[in-house]
Amino acid sequence: MTAIWKNSPSLGKRMGRVEALLAETLSDPGFLLAEPTKRLVLSGGKMLRPAFVIIGSGFGPKGRGASREDRIHHIAAAVELIHTASLVHDDIIDDAAIRRGIPTLHTDFGVTNAILAGDWLFSQSFRLVADYADLKSARVLARFVGGICAAEIGQDLGKFGFSTSKRSYLRTIAGKTAALFSLALHVGASEAKADPFVIQGLRRAGYDIGMAFQIIDDILDYESDDKTLRKPVGNDIKEGLCTLPLILALRKDELALRPLLTKPMDDKKILEILGLVIATGALDEAKAIARHFTTRARVEIGRLPACLAKQELMQAAEALLQRRY
Amino acid sequence: MTAIWKNSPSLGKRMGRVEALLAETLSDPGFLLAEPTKRLVLSGGKMLRPAFVIIGSGFGPKGRGASREDRIHHIAAAVELIHTASLVHDDIIDDAAIRRGIPTLHTDFGVTNAILAGDWLFSQSFRLVADYADLKSARVLARFVGGICAAEIGQDLGKFGFSTSKRSYLRTIAGKTAALFSLALHVGASEAKADPFVIQGLRRAGYDIGMAFQIIDDILDYESDDKTLRKPVGNDIKEGLCTLPLILALRKDELALRPLLTKPMDDKKILEILGLVIATGALDEAKAIARHFTTRARVEIGRLPACLAKQELMQAAEALLQRRY
Repeated sequence: MTAIWKNSPSLGKRMGRVEALLAETLSDPGFLLAEPTKRLVLSGGKMLRPAFVIIGSGFGPKGRGASREDRIHHIAAAVELIHTASLVHDDIIDDAAIRRGIPTLHTDFGVTNAILAGDWLFSQSFRLVADYADLKSARVLARFVGGICAAEIGQDLGKFGFSTSKRSYLRTIAGKTAALFSLALHVGASEAKADPFVIQGLRRAGYDIGMAFQIIDDILDYESDDKTLRKPVGNDIKEGLCTLPLILALRKDELALRPLLTKPMDDKKILEILGLVIATGALDEAKAIARHFTTRARVEIGRLPACLAKQELMQAAEALLQRRY
Repeated sequence: MTAIWKNSPSLGKRMGRVEALLAETLSDPGFLLAEPTKRLVLSGGKMLRPAFVIIGSGFGPKGRGASREDRIHHIAAAVELIHTASLVHDDIIDDAAIRRGIPTLHTDFGVTNAILAGDWLFSQSFRLVADYADLKSARVLARFVGGICAAEIGQDLGKFGFSTSKRSYLRTIAGKTAALFSLALHVGASEAKADPFVIQGLRRAGYDIGMAFQIIDDILDYESDDKTLRKPVGNDIKEGLCTLPLILALRKDELALRPLLTKPMDDKKILEILGLVIATGALDEAKAIARHFTTRARVEIGRLPACLAKQELMQAAEALLQRRY
């Protein structure tokens, strides 16, 4: 996937600065796993969340000076570290072997060290926040991390239950994905002293983009081949996760599907489930729900005051949400 | 063990407030594991670290008002949450079945949920810090968590290596234990606007108390029975940890001991190692090193200005460090 800032040289330049800060923050000779952890952070993640912090900051008044820019770059780096820390712990939980095309930390260094490497990433993130964010942003970020954990635990405890509750699915993806997109725009704008109404609008837009993004991601698990997303299809089913396509399919053809949803799940069964889900037309229905959030996001962005950051946000949203359809 | 504040009703009262705040902070209907996690936090931990925050705050100028007291109680709660979060992750890493007399979280809810419960505790801690600490304390605390992780990873990567490096052992316990004792006194005193020289003295005293405390804890693993510490003797050896008694014993009788240090380790071998370590006289030597830190701590405390908090600190140090000898 091309970077969402490919059409904005100024955003691209600032993202280069964020990457340099990440490399700097994670170079710690006192921490034995610093190098492999840094490699993971810098190995071609989409860097969406820090980009959203920078874009959000573009809604502040002009002429904000180099020192405020520098603070915002550090906060953007902190947001990416929170995201990567939760990925490291997620990969342990899902026992995923590959992340971003390289072996996951627990594959190379064991579960123990991967738990601690994730903790260390969280701590580095809070260090950046404490050093660079204003108190208000620090509070919002701290609250948010608790929210991710709550959403992840909710998701995990529901595994292999294959519940058909759309509401509980939406609540989970709101907590684990949409909240961080929303927060990234919010914190960037708030640090840049944007107008409170603009900050509110950005929060809503971020939330809708995040919701659409996660639903599309969940649909792709039923569609993509290994090359496109660098992860195998049917992964969610294998882990006992009941995402939107399966929820909608179960509502249409529970009789055929439910008996297949067992633990453990073998590859033959996964292919059968994938086929059945596609046959029910659930993917089109899921896409319609994704479009609902995409449309809402476009409307929210449309209401924001005209500026370069607004163009960047619209382009980013289109790049993210158009993926394939 | 009796609470270290048994002789100070005012400290006892404030610790009651900290426990109430912990219960309040961890009551989160949105977090499915909040109840068992809260139970663990409140199930008879020694609460040393929050007590040290309160004691540290007693070195500030008098008449500091209810609002500052309240801030300090919240920070004390945050420090206990950091400590418990790292215990939850530690117990996963060590695959410990029991903590504070009740089953560990990963025993009851699986590794996955215990990882997330630990993350959640960290996040709740940072939430308290962001909401109540001044920026300086927030920075010190954020840095500190990174330091714990680094020390734990260092320790973990060294497991079953049975290195005889005293220096590396002391560095590890400094990071994983002494730093938090030191920090607790420091943050309490700093929030209460104590004199900078007093804060420095408290940092040093906390460090020395923490070092002695951990060395004594490591000696007890070679001495205590299951009742006293509620954990089995020989646990460190079983986990491949080379603490001070074993380091000193290896230096005296490597020929007899080294062949026994294999992975995995069975119970018969552990008893044999325990016997050999005791026979070398390594425990007495380790106690002498603990006494070195205890003495230094007493000297540091003696230099502090006379006040109720100084008495409380001296009593706490004596209660902690006299355990058995």
